[in-house]
Amino acid sequence: MRAAIQDLYPDDFAHCFGCGRHNARGHLMKSFVDGDEVVAHFTPRPEHTALPGFVYGGLIASLIDCHAMATAAAAAERAAGREIGAAEAPRFVTAALDVSFLKPTPIGGELVLRAHVTDRNERKAVITVSLSANDVVTARGNVIAVPMPASMARR
Amino acid sequence: MRAAIQDLYPDDFAHCFGCGRHNARGHLMKSFVDGDEVVAHFTPRPEHTALPGFVYGGLIASLIDCHAMATAAAAAERAAGREIGAAEAPRFVTAALDVSFLKPTPIGGELVLRAHVTDRNERKAVITVSLSANDVVTARGNVIAVPMPASMARR
Repeated sequence: MRAAIQDLYPDDFAHCFGCGRHNARGHLMKSFVDGDEVVAHFTPRPEHTALPGFVYGGLIASLIDCHAMATAAAAAERAAGREIGAAEAPRFVTAALDVSFLKPTPIGGELVLRAHVTDRNERKAVITVSLSANDVVTARGNVIAVPMPASMARR
Repeated sequence: MRAAIQDLYPDDFAHCFGCGRHNARGHLMKSFVDGDEVVAHFTPRPEHTALPGFVYGGLIASLIDCHAMATAAAAAERAAGREIGAAEAPRFVTAALDVSFLKPTPIGGELVLRAHVTDRNERKAVITVSLSANDVVTARGNVIAVPMPASMARR
């Protein structure tokens, strides 16, 4: 049983509303390494509505954002020569997020997110994410992740 | 007492998790015309955390998104020669959203969103949104809004 990337974040930085294991009121999203990609599954709740029948775009943006940060963490571990799970995962934050809503996303089933890193160095990573419902890609995101600045660490 | 733009959306399309008056579990965000701008105030709840002490970026993206749709609706009404509130407000949906997170957004106080339309025609509107905390702009968004397609109308 592999660990979710978010379950490897340090205890002090695992409160994210989207994906923090210490945020019981949050979405508790989990992302897993799958070869060269990172994959997550998430089923919106009925209240996560945009117009009746469709998923709220703000939730879609949120899921893309958190999933991209996990993808950046996995890539940083791999670049450091570690397999994800061998140590705590590094915490990234979002510098910029863009999302294209290609089609309305139907509500009622599971969404699948797939991400990969398109560029990275020590200072940032660029991640592309697709979100699909019923095997149809309905949104794509491009996200710039940067390592959590020391100013955000309130240990 | 002016009406919030979202309170003028048709009853059948007022369920948005971010700003729908018929979604009791949602954020119930409200946007108001203020001269050439549209303004909203929102106080995140404690669980809307990214890292401890800071607002979740997914919430910021969500607020920018809903606020931009309201701004597009107000601009469409104005272009049609009506003051907002004189009729039901037209419903727009998001084609694309980009957000730059300029600084960490501190949690605990009220956020202020200000938006204006930078370009519009019958087919789309482009909206720029700033989000500030304690009078400091911490995020900016650019959003493309399009009129709700008929395929999303499940009246």
